[in-house]
Amino acid sequence: MTGGSRQGDAEFTAEERDAVYRCIFDRRDVRGQFLGDEVPDEVLGRILKAAHRAPSVGFMQPWDFIILKDQGTKQRIRDAFQVAHEEAAGQFEGDRQSLYKSLKLEGITEAPIGLCVTCDRERSGRAVLGRTHQAEMDLYSAVCAVQNLWLAARAENVGVGWVSILRYDDLREILGIPDRVQPIAYLCIGYVSHFLDKPELETRGWLPRMKLDELVWFDRWQERSGSEPLLEQLR
Amino acid sequence: MTGGSRQGDAEFTAEERDAVYRCIFDRRDVRGQFLGDEVPDEVLGRILKAAHRAPSVGFMQPWDFIILKDQGTKQRIRDAFQVAHEEAAGQFEGDRQSLYKSLKLEGITEAPIGLCVTCDRERSGRAVLGRTHQAEMDLYSAVCAVQNLWLAARAENVGVGWVSILRYDDLREILGIPDRVQPIAYLCIGYVSHFLDKPELETRGWLPRMKLDELVWFDRWQERSGSEPLLEQLR
Repeated sequence: MTGGSRQGDAEFTAEERDAVYRCIFDRRDVRGQFLGDEVPDEVLGRILKAAHRAPSVGFMQPWDFIILKDQGTKQRIRDAFQVAHEEAAGQFEGDRQSLYKSLKLEGITEAPIGLCVTCDRERSGRAVLGRTHQAEMDLYSAVCAVQNLWLAARAENVGVGWVSILRYDDLREILGIPDRVQPIAYLCIGYVSHFLDKPELETRGWLPRMKLDELVWFDRWQERSGSEPLLEQLR
Repeated sequence: MTGGSRQGDAEFTAEERDAVYRCIFDRRDVRGQFLGDEVPDEVLGRILKAAHRAPSVGFMQPWDFIILKDQGTKQRIRDAFQVAHEEAAGQFEGDRQSLYKSLKLEGITEAPIGLCVTCDRERSGRAVLGRTHQAEMDLYSAVCAVQNLWLAARAENVGVGWVSILRYDDLREILGIPDRVQPIAYLCIGYVSHFLDKPELETRGWLPRMKLDELVWFDRWQERSGSEPLLEQLR
């Protein structure tokens, strides 16, 4: 393998690169900092376009986007969260349960926009290029759309929170989603008073940030020989 | 709900925002344009750090990263791809099968780096905050790490291709991955001669780009009343 020449005009500048990293590092899961300010259609439109540019297996683009602004509908989702949340609390014990109960885990009714991202599992027929051996690749494509949207929102100074303490069946019923379509994410979207410096679960002591160099292996699971120069970069 | 004041110093500038959008729009799934040039540890390190900053359910950070540089190991993965690829071709008929067979769908042995991203389903114990009602949230977290990595690589002018025509069991066996750990993505990573203007499956006529305004609903599945101003932004 010999080096060839690279296409120069497509290269990102150092400034552009740093902006992308800043976006990745400063993105937060927002629960408690939503403001009521309306998000202009122009901004929401750009964020949705970014989601639509996600990679998708076999170019099937399996996503749909249900935008919720109706307070009554958001309240029904909030009620479904509350039921699940109380059940969830029972799965933690002692101090962990007290900490769990003290955390604010959603901003469903405060955020001006709710967004349910879904995956239509039958969108492009039975055989999908790239999905023949990994059936969940369509779900993963929709998750990539969520992450694109989340980063685009951060670049627009808009906060996003992913609420996963919800039953899919409740989302289906409240939003009228058909059986072939899988809800992937319920997101709260809006401007925020501030973005937290660190993830709240880190600050509050739920779990620590793991050391990246302990999560990287070479050529085989749990193999590390000859990898010191890269590991040094990760510390 | 009344508007409050926003934290000004955390705001992205228009230039930073545009860089993020450029990255999202110019990212490509690379299969045929890999060069042999080595990717410096410093660059690979930054890309991995971006992956590690992905959102994760309950802050469980379920990912590991197996970096492959050994040509023999990459060849074994290429062989596993070839078996799956030939099986997959049989699922398409006539002109679709001819087109499928004519597409280059991986760059496993040409790309200087292979990367298997995994999800440890037991990383933080049985009960995981936010995963009590949606058990696959850990898998989705690892997918968000893949998308972060993909975008960071694009900002570094490094190409990434996701090879999904592989059996997870083959990946487990070749890489020694234990049962509790789920392979999520096998990625080919390296500098490229050029990034394609459009997804190859779009250019080659496999499927068209869908119209975004036909994928957006309001307050309920397939409901559109009162949404014209936003839909106009999406066209």
